[in-house]
Formats: sequence, C-alpha cells, structure tokens
Amino acid sequence: MILKTQKNDTIVALSTPVGVSAIAVIRLSGENCIAIIEQIWQGKKLSTQAGNTVLFGKIINENKDIIDEVVLALFKAPKSFTKQNVIEISCHGSGYIVQEIIKLCLKNGARLAEAGEFTQRAYLNGQFDLAQAEAIADLIHADSKASHQLAISQMRGGFSNKIKELRENLIKIAALLELELDFSEEDVEFANRTQLLTQVIDLQVVITNMANSFQLGNVMKNGFSVAIMGKPNAGKSTLLNALLEEDRAIVSNIAGTTRDTIEETKIINGIKFRFIDTAGLRETEDTIEKIGIERTLKKIKEAQYILYLFDMNTMTITELEEEEKNIVQPYQIPYCLVGNKIDLIDTKNVEAFEKLPNFIGISMYEPQKIQLLEDFLANYIQHISSQESQIIVNNTRHHQCLLEAADALQVVQNAINHRFATEMIASDLRQAIFHLGSIVGEVTNNDLLDFIFSKFCIGK
Amino acid sequence: MILKTQKNDTIVALSTPVGVSAIAVIRLSGENCIAIIEQIWQGKKLSTQAGNTVLFGKIINENKDIIDEVVLALFKAPKSFTKQNVIEISCHGSGYIVQEIIKLCLKNGARLAEAGEFTQRAYLNGQFDLAQAEAIADLIHADSKASHQLAISQMRGGFSNKIKELRENLIKIAALLELELDFSEEDVEFANRTQLLTQVIDLQVVITNMANSFQLGNVMKNGFSVAIMGKPNAGKSTLLNALLEEDRAIVSNIAGTTRDTIEETKIINGIKFRFIDTAGLRETEDTIEKIGIERTLKKIKEAQYILYLFDMNTMTITELEEEEKNIVQPYQIPYCLVGNKIDLIDTKNVEAFEKLPNFIGISMYEPQKIQLLEDFLANYIQHISSQESQIIVNNTRHHQCLLEAADALQVVQNAINHRFATEMIASDLRQAIFHLGSIVGEVTNNDLLDFIFSKFCIGK
Repeated sequence: MILKTQKNDTIVALSTPVGVSAIAVIRLSGENCIAIIEQIWQGKKLSTQAGNTVLFGKIINENKDIIDEVVLALFKAPKSFTKQNVIEISCHGSGYIVQEIIKLCLKNGARLAEAGEFTQRAYLNGQFDLAQAEAIADLIHADSKASHQLAISQMRGGFSNKIKELRENLIKIAALLELELDFSEEDVEFANRTQLLTQVIDLQVVITNMANSFQLGNVMKNGFSVAIMGKPNAGKSTLLNALLEEDRAIVSNIAGTTRDTIEETKIINGIKFRFIDTAGLRETEDTIEKIGIERTLKKIKEAQYILYLFDMNTMTITELEEEEKNIVQPYQIPYCLVGNKIDLIDTKNVEAFEKLPNFIGISMYEPQKIQLLEDFLANYIQHISSQESQIIVNNTRHHQCLLEAADALQVVQNAINHRFATEMIASDLRQAIFHLGSIVGEVTNNDLLDFIFSKFCIGK
Repeated sequence: MILKTQKNDTIVALSTPVGVSAIAVIRLSGENCIAIIEQIWQGKKLSTQAGNTVLFGKIINENKDIIDEVVLALFKAPKSFTKQNVIEISCHGSGYIVQEIIKLCLKNGARLAEAGEFTQRAYLNGQFDLAQAEAIADLIHADSKASHQLAISQMRGGFSNKIKELRENLIKIAALLELELDFSEEDVEFANRTQLLTQVIDLQVVITNMANSFQLGNVMKNGFSVAIMGKPNAGKSTLLNALLEEDRAIVSNIAGTTRDTIEETKIINGIKFRFIDTAGLRETEDTIEKIGIERTLKKIKEAQYILYLFDMNTMTITELEEEEKNIVQPYQIPYCLVGNKIDLIDTKNVEAFEKLPNFIGISMYEPQKIQLLEDFLANYIQHISSQESQIIVNNTRHHQCLLEAADALQVVQNAINHRFATEMIASDLRQAIFHLGSIVGEVTNNDLLDFIFSKFCIGK
C-alpha cells in the first residue's frame, strides 16, 4: 500500500456519464497536468495563464491532426478542487473523441484515475474532512429532497463540526487524566471523579442519540420501506398501482394473483418510500404461491412499516381486531389498518371504524383518499424527524463508529465507578476519541480510505 | 413559425448525458442568463466579472436552501459559442440536483432549450455556416477514425469553403449574364457562349465528383456493409465470429443453423464495417428457414460488398466459377471469393485457386489468415478513397443539393447549346446557385433549419 498523500502524479478520467451528448468533461489533476496538456494543445500557452480561466483551443495528436475543438478550464494549485493543478476539458460528447483525448493524456504521462481519486486527493490535501468527502458521494446519489438536504448539510460540515466538538471535549478530559499520570507518584486527582462521570455520561447520551438518528438517516438516504399486507383479494396490488399511479402489479379478482413480491419507490413530500406489494396470506396448495407467501413473510419482517389492508365490506370491527392482534402485532413493526372499499359501506359503520386508532379508510376510486394515506405516511416520518436532534447520521460507517465510541464511554463509566487506575480510564477514553476521530478522518489508514473512495464514481 | 434569428430569450438544458456521475453541466444562453442565474447564485457578482472566467459558488433556492456547490463558467457576448451571454454550471452529477437547478432557471425566466437550439443560435449569429453546424452533430456521433476525421474537417470549414468557391464562380458567370439582360435591347453578348459552356461543364464535373464522393462519405459515416454469402455449411457464421473475435452467431455443423440475418460492426483500420451473416442459400422445406433465405437475398442486395464463402475442400475451380457467374455476379455488387479450409488442401491446389482474381484463402484456425482478409477489405476502401477528391460528402442533404445543382447546370448547358434566351440561361444558373447556397445555409428557411437541428442532442 503506497501512501497516496504524497502522490502528485497526474490522473485523468471522464467526469461526465458515458453517452452521446453535447458536452463531455475530462478532468486531470496533478503537478504536471499543465505540461501534459500543452503537448496536445493548440491555443494560448497554458503555463502563462492565470488560474480560474477558460480557454478555447484545439486538442491535437502527435501528427497535429485535430481531435476536437474544446473549451478548457484551468485551475492552478492550490485554488482547485484537489488543491493541485487541475484542468477540465469540455469536448464534444462523442465516445470516440473522449477515448482519443484520454489516450493522448496517457501517452503524455497521465494515468487513469481510480474511482474517487480526485475527491481522495482533495481530502488528503485538506480541502475537507472524511465525513464531508463521503457526503459528496451521497450527494451524487441523492434522489429525494430529504437525502439531498442531508448530504448537503453533511458536505457543508455540520455533522463534522459536531463530531469534532465532541472529540475536543473528550480530549480535554483525557488531557486532565494524562496530567494525573504525569504526577502519578503524588497521587493527585486533577479530574474530580464525580464531575468526570457526569461529563462522560452527558457525552455518551449525545453520541448515542446521534447513533440512533441513523434509523431516520437511513430512511432519508435509502427510503422508508412499507409492506402492503393483507389477506388474498384485499386489493393490495390495486393499492400499489394507485400509489404509483401506474399499472405496475398485475391485478385480477382471482385470489393469489400476486406471487413475486414487487417493490417500487415513490417520493412523497421529498421522502423516498419503498412500497412492497406482497402475496396475500392464506393456506394454499399452489407450490409457486407457497414460495411467494414464504418470501412475503420474510419481506414483511424487514419492512419499517406495515399497511394492513382489509376489505371493510366483508369484515366486522371484532374480526379486524382479532387479525390485528394475531397477524399484525406479532411483527412488532409500526403499522396502520387500511380499510378498503370505504365507498361501499354506510356512514354509521364508517364512524365505528374511524374510532379505531391507526385506522384509515380508502377507496381505489377516490384519488383524494389515496392522497390522505400518502399524507398520513409523510406525517409519520415528519413526526419521527421532529423527535431527532438536528444532526442525522446516514452513513453505516459513521453509525458504527458512534456505537463504538458510545461503548467505549460505557467502559469509561464502569472504570470510574469501580475507581480503576487513571491509566485504564485514560486508555478507554482514548478508544472513544479514536472512534470519533475516524469518522472525520483525523485518524485513519489507507485500507479504509481505499474502501471509502472505491465506492465513488470514476472521475470524481 | 417564429423567426428564431431574432430570439435572444434565455434557454437552458443539461448538456451532459443523463446519469449518476462526478459532474453534470447545465448550459444557458441568452441576453438575460446572467440576471437569471444571479437570482439563484451565492458567490461573486456575475455581472461585474469578466467573460471567460470560472467562479466557485452555490446555487440556492428561494428559501436560501443550498442546492449545490458548483463551478460556473461565464462567457460574455459575443465571445461565446452562441455569441450570446452563456453560462455553464458544473454541478454534482446527480439527477435530483440537475432537475432542481433547471427548475430554478425556469422559475426565474429561462425556458427549456429545444434539441440543437444552442448550435442553431450559433449558426444564426454567424459563428459558422450550416454545413459546419451539421458537422457538429456528425462529430458527436462519430465512432470511427474515418467518420471523426470527416466531421472534423467539415466542421473546420473545408467543405464549406469549396462549396462557397464553386458558388462564387457561378455567381460571377451569372453576373455577366445579368449584365447582358441590362443591355438586352442592344443585343450584346458579354459572356462568350463557348467559354461559358466550358466553364459550366467544368463546374458541373467538380460538383458531380463531389456528389459521387457521397458513397465513400456514407461508408465513412455509417460503415461499409459486407454480406457474408455462401451455401449452407460453408462456415459463414464461423467467419463472422472469427472477424468479431467473439461467439456472436450460433454455429453448428447442421446446414441451416442461421435463420435470422445477423449484423455486427467492426472497426478495421479506422473504418467501420458492418458484417452481415446470412442464411445459407439452398432449396428448403423448412418454413422459418425459407423466410430467412428470402431476407438474406434482400440483405445481400443492399450490401456494398459480398464475401462469397465456399469450402475449398469440396469444390473444384470450375464449380466455383460456375457459382460465381450464376450466383454472385448477378447482384452487380463488388465481391471477392473466400475459400475456407485452405489448411486442408494441398499446396498445388491452393496455387490453382490463387490464380483466380479476387480470391482469398482462409482458415478459421489461422488468425493471421483472417487478418489477411481484414487487410484486404481495408485496402479495398483505401483504394476507393484514393480515387476521390479531397472533399468527401457524408450528408444526405448535401448530396441531394449537389445532385440538384449538377442537374441545374445540365439544364444550363442545354440552354446554351440551343442558344436559348439569356434570361432562361440566367434563371437556370440561379437554380444551381440556390442549391449550393442551401448547403452552407446562405439561402434557407425555418422549416429546413428546424428539421436539421431537431436531429441534434438536447443541450447542444
């Protein structure tokens, strides 16, 4: 493993998607990128130009054949994304041209960039910390308002600052303990143990709360999974189609029509929901349907919310409460009871159902009722969000680090409570500091970095 | 139809392909694009910046939420692609972000660009002529060295200059004739009819040659189609696979394995070839095979070259010459006779075959023999190219205009030969001038422009 920190060789990659288009952008970064491009450039001399300028010119090969007329953006170190010299070539969006220009860059001394290598250099050169770098990947993949806002706020450093603040606090405590160690022969306590315990508990609570916000963060990033559950012919596939406003699932009045679970996403109020249509639950002799029901039960267990759909027309409140208790509640997943065909039963009956907690009545023929269901789900997420702190964790690695930091602080508390030696308390505290540090990349190793950046796009 | 020439409203489009990537580029052009972006921009004031600069800043919405941190390239009229104010926003390559930024541009007064509208504005504002604009679309779609070079040379104006030169010559002749018309009552001939005839014939020859180069131009742009023809089990599919170096066509020793014609492209020496594997020609009772053979015959008729494949092991030279005469030559398409299994017959026999013109012996087990066949095809194209003038026409519209110009010049010649009135000669000459002018867009109409630019990418 070569330490990339010291690398200043020139990397090149296509930074826009592959495909025929008006423009494609090829990006280079590295000490020599200006010299490399000057070998294949016809236009104003690059080395004498100021940074942050755009230049019009031609890319030529060794025979002076024109490969393309391009616009070149020149960024001079350290005023660039990677803090190195950077050139961005906007050429015509032809695969052939892109390939020829990259080939010419390679011939003249550049090498192909690995995935995320531009961002990695930016991080290694102090443009931002590791959590901010990771937010860039999240930002690129964001496909809803919620995931986008989360990524932007993390990229802007909100999360990093909070982590750094917590880490500073732990370091201050650790410093006091280290001081005690320096004077260990004199048996003094610079850090009052009761005060110390309170501080550690407070910090642990904050860290644990942040770790817990991962559930919501994960919802915002990857979507909130909602299983549509119910007996055969309750109208589950019709509900999925109504939510998606398209003919996604095959619908028939034959019980057992749906066999494979179908999963589709829909953005409601900026939050991504994953709706899962499942096979209707019943005893069956049909082999394929049996497999479908098995998969359904597994899918429901993994869901974050259940819409239990039933036909209001064929069920009494007592029967419903029976099913709720025996079928729905055992999953221990938040749910609501969705009464279908509300348009077919009389008002008095409706009123009785509406007294149930978690009840929503719908009709596939009344789009505004489907809208009500969507609003209900959106409000549910809103409600969870409002209980969270401002900082929401959406990254598995960060979540893991926070949990480990919280665990380490638990060990610290035990050590204080048992009046263990200062040395041991200090050592456990350093563990917590280490875990927080690895979130923002203040402590790290190359394997971890390679792993993180390998998930980026090439050209980023 | 609104004349777009006078349009200076601001258009916006994504100029890079759709997809998750490091960077996406959103382009705006129009008088107000700077004012529009300033509504959603946090960074240095754009209106006071010099053109050709890049700026780092943020795109924000009406609630000051940050949509993205971007790099903005500013081009001020007339120093831009469209000769209008142009802004290119390089944002993170997320579909969500692109959509949000474009929405904000629309909210603040831009409208979505139509396909090719940026290039159309560049043309209308005199950045280049119509043939050059059309070359940009060709350039973007170029996928081989030959098509790329052709497009580059056309974009750089080589073709346009030649057309303009021809047109100038015709205009000079027309001017003389117009002069005669001014003095028509005096019955003078400013233009000597014999000299006139020679000039018109010379120009017609040049124009006809250019029109004829379309065959080659079309090959360079769209590829050269080569039908692999032969009796069942000659090894046609094996040859296709060998040329493609992959298992494309299903191969078996059962005659009649191939039913659908298979078409695949391969770039050889920078030229794109379209190889067409066809059903083996024989009498058959199999219904599907029959349909296959019918399609084969149709495909062969459309091909530009035939590889007639036969098994050297089972055929005498006399039989081969028989088939050549009865099966291959009736198509009136250039061809060569490809003897398969050359490795299985003795040298003396090989020598006899090699005396045939257009013979190539191959073996699927000897890659260097396949290479020889490829070189043969590449040389064939090279040979055609060398016979052409430097200017090669690759655009159907240009080809059509050239043919019409040549036709008009034929009419001019007839008129001169029959000593028709000067008025008629001048009028026919104006037709030829018109057709040449419409190639470069000196005469045009909006419908034609809309048609041409509608074939461009959005964002170009």
